[in-house]
Amino acid sequence: MKYKAYKDRLTKIADISYTTAVLGWDQETYMPEKGAGFRAQQIATLSGMIHELFTDKELGKTLNKLDNSKKLTEKQRRNITQTLKDYKRQKKYNREFVELLSKTQSECFQAWQQARKENNFKLYAPHLTKMIALKRKEAEILGYKKHPYDALLDQYEPGARVADLDILFKDVRSQLVAFVKKVAAAKQNDDKFMRLHYPKDKQWDFGIDLLKQMHYDFDAGRQDLSAHPFTTSFSPKDVRVTTRISENNFKSMIWSCIHEGGHGLYEQGLPDSEYGLPSGEAVSLGIHESQSRLWENMVGRGLPYWKANIKLARKYFPENLNDISAEQFWKASNIVTPSFIRTEADELTYHFHILIRYEIEKALMEGKLEVKDLPAYWNAKYKEYLGVKVPNDAQGVLQDIHWSHGSIGYFPTYSLGSFYAAQFYATAKKEVKSLEDKIENGNLLPLLEWLREKIHKHGKYYSAEELCKKVTGEKLNFNYFMDYATEKYSEIYGLK
Amino acid sequence: MKYKAYKDRLTKIADISYTTAVLGWDQETYMPEKGAGFRAQQIATLSGMIHELFTDKELGKTLNKLDNSKKLTEKQRRNITQTLKDYKRQKKYNREFVELLSKTQSECFQAWQQARKENNFKLYAPHLTKMIALKRKEAEILGYKKHPYDALLDQYEPGARVADLDILFKDVRSQLVAFVKKVAAAKQNDDKFMRLHYPKDKQWDFGIDLLKQMHYDFDAGRQDLSAHPFTTSFSPKDVRVTTRISENNFKSMIWSCIHEGGHGLYEQGLPDSEYGLPSGEAVSLGIHESQSRLWENMVGRGLPYWKANIKLARKYFPENLNDISAEQFWKASNIVTPSFIRTEADELTYHFHILIRYEIEKALMEGKLEVKDLPAYWNAKYKEYLGVKVPNDAQGVLQDIHWSHGSIGYFPTYSLGSFYAAQFYATAKKEVKSLEDKIENGNLLPLLEWLREKIHKHGKYYSAEELCKKVTGEKLNFNYFMDYATEKYSEIYGLK
Repeated sequence: MKYKAYKDRLTKIADISYTTAVLGWDQETYMPEKGAGFRAQQIATLSGMIHELFTDKELGKTLNKLDNSKKLTEKQRRNITQTLKDYKRQKKYNREFVELLSKTQSECFQAWQQARKENNFKLYAPHLTKMIALKRKEAEILGYKKHPYDALLDQYEPGARVADLDILFKDVRSQLVAFVKKVAAAKQNDDKFMRLHYPKDKQWDFGIDLLKQMHYDFDAGRQDLSAHPFTTSFSPKDVRVTTRISENNFKSMIWSCIHEGGHGLYEQGLPDSEYGLPSGEAVSLGIHESQSRLWENMVGRGLPYWKANIKLARKYFPENLNDISAEQFWKASNIVTPSFIRTEADELTYHFHILIRYEIEKALMEGKLEVKDLPAYWNAKYKEYLGVKVPNDAQGVLQDIHWSHGSIGYFPTYSLGSFYAAQFYATAKKEVKSLEDKIENGNLLPLLEWLREKIHKHGKYYSAEELCKKVTGEKLNFNYFMDYATEKYSEIYGLK
Repeated sequence: MKYKAYKDRLTKIADISYTTAVLGWDQETYMPEKGAGFRAQQIATLSGMIHELFTDKELGKTLNKLDNSKKLTEKQRRNITQTLKDYKRQKKYNREFVELLSKTQSECFQAWQQARKENNFKLYAPHLTKMIALKRKEAEILGYKKHPYDALLDQYEPGARVADLDILFKDVRSQLVAFVKKVAAAKQNDDKFMRLHYPKDKQWDFGIDLLKQMHYDFDAGRQDLSAHPFTTSFSPKDVRVTTRISENNFKSMIWSCIHEGGHGLYEQGLPDSEYGLPSGEAVSLGIHESQSRLWENMVGRGLPYWKANIKLARKYFPENLNDISAEQFWKASNIVTPSFIRTEADELTYHFHILIRYEIEKALMEGKLEVKDLPAYWNAKYKEYLGVKVPNDAQGVLQDIHWSHGSIGYFPTYSLGSFYAAQFYATAKKEVKSLEDKIENGNLLPLLEWLREKIHKHGKYYSAEELCKKVTGEKLNFNYFMDYATEKYSEIYGLK
């Protein structure tokens, strides 16, 4: 009966959380401009209620009793362990700190917007300095064993630690930098045809077809337009994705669509019987990103996929694509070229962008880097890892929203996602018979079923590390990504 | 400070209520099919929280103290009076009753759906019987002075009583029935051109143009499609309307669009400084309906309006309308003909549909009519008032959703709305200089400004009766509607 009380409480909290997600989705898709003020207030009220319900003493008592209970199933026990961990974390924050953080966030975000608009880092610096100080305090509040950054990383990627990430990013630095240099020296492929005129409506229909082919369930989801593509979930039976369409950049829609579709498939695959419980949630941001990246890059930027889909693309855009072969399309979708904007980066140089942010965040948390020195540090790193000169701060250190929200520790999950994706995909190729032949025939169901069975259906039952070991036989290993990248891009750029 | 505590609490409740409205809006417009189950659960959770917050003892104490305070402004005092009345009403329900009602509602609704589908009233009868018994019990719980129906009417139309409605509907019966007979005997006008092919996209654009002309603010609202048109509000700065489009019935979109636009203008005109308080809410369903009916019928089915808009209509649909004059369009939009479906009725015979439901609800609440005798009673009334033979129960007694939800006392507000509308419009014609000339020139702003000033901006500060007296100088008087109808339809049908 205690477990039922626990489940009921978490269901109620989930009802409010998912409702808040509906408010957020509407805000980004359909809300009229003037609705913003009251909408922000409504979201704040609901968020406050969630915090209140989740830190309620009664819930704490229930959790502690259940934690000592011998009568639970293994799944129940894991749910309790997870929730108790979250409960204890939430309880560490006192009201003053939460309010100060919330106030600083909103000031910092506004200052960031202004600073980016005016290309003036100095407008942002004092607010970011305050934010970093608060985040260092937050790390102390939350506690950590070795490194203050660990406390923040754990919020996005439970179990992620500086000690492990240092090793991982050392590999990125040593292996990927060298390989990208080789690629950059090779003859570039042509992707001009991707920037012809692609009418909006036809792009939309093409994107919907791609999602359907992935078996994204449109009876349990939908796609809409938004300025920045995202995926959000109101239950495993109602998972929404969004996309954006640029009429002179065909790439923008295609891979945002497949990427969000990958996130969407994960959410649709979570067990609805575990609604509101850890076992009904995604493992971590990194594992979530592994699903989007696997579909986007390993599948959607693969040759078999375009052998399957070039005809469909030609059907929608005959003028632009009738003379383009699957190979040409594939090569054009995998142009590697160093740049200074993260969100526009290719799948290899992308990780240098993350690496730079990781090193900066770590240094900020250690107190070894001061906010005032950030722009120079940033620009030097871009020169070092990407060989590019950052033209100005607006397109440099001010390009990302994350720090203005206080999201320190979020960026590494993007790289983790790609590396997990490569490792999962390598395993899928071994375990799903003739996987890429199937993809080449447009049959994506066997891959989805494998992901459902191996990853989606377990929710947060396993930690990221446990899941990775269970699925692939070993813990996260950067070699899988490096092998994938080397093989793929050696072929594309004729480096063999 | 007490008043601030009251306002803060009501703001919080409003945040949750408006959020629930977002969930409802999404459910009717964009939600994918499979999302229904969890969505219903989420709405139930939020509704429960609203009830909990609104019946909280602390709120009761605050209200009672404020009710005795001498320090309040008149507006504050009226807010407290209203909220205290609502609070006391909510407190009368015990948990068992609320749960039983909720359970009965969902069973009754399901039975109604099935019964209508199968044209089998017997499937519905036992559930409706249970519902009526509960509603009679609810009237006892709520209390009343003269008639149990009064207690239910008051929920939708505060202050409405059987004693007054009996007089009103007696007028409807004696005056309107006779006049409609005269109209029915006259030569019918041609509206075949309304049923030509009107492409969906063009209808949509035309409807948007009509809403813009009404000064519906699209920065504080939007229109979407739904099976049944409705208006919903998430704040005065975010008011959504929906419409439906039938390609072979031009009328369906036009007047649903103007009707919901009228509701929308009222919500957009409520004072946002009074968000969440009675003075920031609509007076009653009847007054709300007066705004939609005034725009739909007095304005949107008037000759000046079509003199202004026939050219626009022709621009969108030249093939269908180039040979149609404003007069022809106007006459075609005012076809009076008795029928057996309420939602398709013209603005005169509509009230017989309401009259029938009113008489039935009253008799059910008095215990003078039993559910098993409903179909025969219904059909006899339709014969008597409308002269039509109801073909079957699905298109007869089973046509409306209201009773299956337990909404007893709701129907009369539809007629009240039309009658208030006629009275308000008659006053507007006196007070707004050359009103109909302005309408004929497509200038609807003076009318909107008058409505804003006289009605919208006051929220619920006045009761319906007070408001009516303040705006028109007298309480609700059916003669205004009768005069409007006689003049308009005598001209249309050549009865002068």
